[in-house]
Amino acid sequence: MTDSYEPTERTVPTRSRHRASYDRALVHAILDESYVCHLGFVRDGAPVVLPTLYGRIGDRLYVHGSTGSRPLRMAGSGTEAPGLPVCLTVTHVDGLVLARSAFHHSINYRSVVVHGTAHQVTDPEELRIALDALVDHVVPGRSRDSRPANAKELAATAVLRLDLDEVSAKLRTGGPNDEPEDLTLPHWTGVVPVARTYGTPIPADDLDPAVALPGYLPAG
Amino acid sequence: MTDSYEPTERTVPTRSRHRASYDRALVHAILDESYVCHLGFVRDGAPVVLPTLYGRIGDRLYVHGSTGSRPLRMAGSGTEAPGLPVCLTVTHVDGLVLARSAFHHSINYRSVVVHGTAHQVTDPEELRIALDALVDHVVPGRSRDSRPANAKELAATAVLRLDLDEVSAKLRTGGPNDEPEDLTLPHWTGVVPVARTYGTPIPADDLDPAVALPGYLPAG
Repeated sequence: MTDSYEPTERTVPTRSRHRASYDRALVHAILDESYVCHLGFVRDGAPVVLPTLYGRIGDRLYVHGSTGSRPLRMAGSGTEAPGLPVCLTVTHVDGLVLARSAFHHSINYRSVVVHGTAHQVTDPEELRIALDALVDHVVPGRSRDSRPANAKELAATAVLRLDLDEVSAKLRTGGPNDEPEDLTLPHWTGVVPVARTYGTPIPADDLDPAVALPGYLPAG
Repeated sequence: MTDSYEPTERTVPTRSRHRASYDRALVHAILDESYVCHLGFVRDGAPVVLPTLYGRIGDRLYVHGSTGSRPLRMAGSGTEAPGLPVCLTVTHVDGLVLARSAFHHSINYRSVVVHGTAHQVTDPEELRIALDALVDHVVPGRSRDSRPANAKELAATAVLRLDLDEVSAKLRTGGPNDEPEDLTLPHWTGVVPVARTYGTPIPADDLDPAVALPGYLPAG
């Protein structure tokens, strides 16, 4: 495995090429910091974009669905199924960039765009591993502290696999890039940091009070 | 204007229909709480999903781009251009839902999915209003406190308009839905709240210290 993904015609942006990266570790880090992606596919010739949970094992992404959902049905099942062409995108917003000019306003962000063909996971052992990865991607360590899926649940769950092959990251960092002639304008300029934060866990109404908050959750 | 969008075959989900809503005020509220959408379109028969800034004026969304970007070029310009079929999706993650069973793990979220055809804004007055809306969608009030775009900048900026017509919201709220036979399992169960938060604004290195933090920004 090399340290970088090979750029392709689809993963080289038409604009701001200096913000693109193919570094494997960076792509993995961006993917691992979230658990909701936006999955795009084509249905009757038109684009569809749906938010979906995902997990990662090495260079494989697993996307969660039910056997009745549209992308899952479109991907087909069995080793002979052609799969579903998808584009999977994950984006973190890191800051609001306020320049002195409206034109130079921007967002600091990190995103990953994956192109490829998603296939339904049919191997029972791979499905089990993928489901654990999906749960642990949201809360690391949680799969070992919950009841595993039973046969009925496994039959109702479908998972798509998407290999990380044609993939790129794109980032913007730093402060505003104002024009030299704007530097004396009286407007405040800088960056407002943005982050995803976690609040104090709220126990379910029917939770036995004797069950302590597990160590893998934020104490709040 | 009615209070709800008309459901269509594309906006009625195949699963979890009870989570879908067509309420106009709810859709607007979800859209107004963010400024980054995921815009899907079809290129050479394959889906593409890119994160993009947007703003809203009534039932019109404006999506930011440059004249050189792929979706903008594909939409074409001029009143005769056919436009670009798109799917625009906005998602908020509100909580991690930890059930006693792996199967019932979920996410509390609010999302909006818009289907339609995006057209490039060519009217100069509409373009000016749209650019203000884009800036004010990120930081309300900011467009009046920055230098407006000049002719050169306007020529380099392109904005797509997408009417809110075929649109739906989808939400999950509340706690886990465990199976009755799982209620005595020893696993912690509940919701971990998730929110987007803003940090203390970081002034640009070249900001005149005499310029105070404006009231429309968080003091941190």
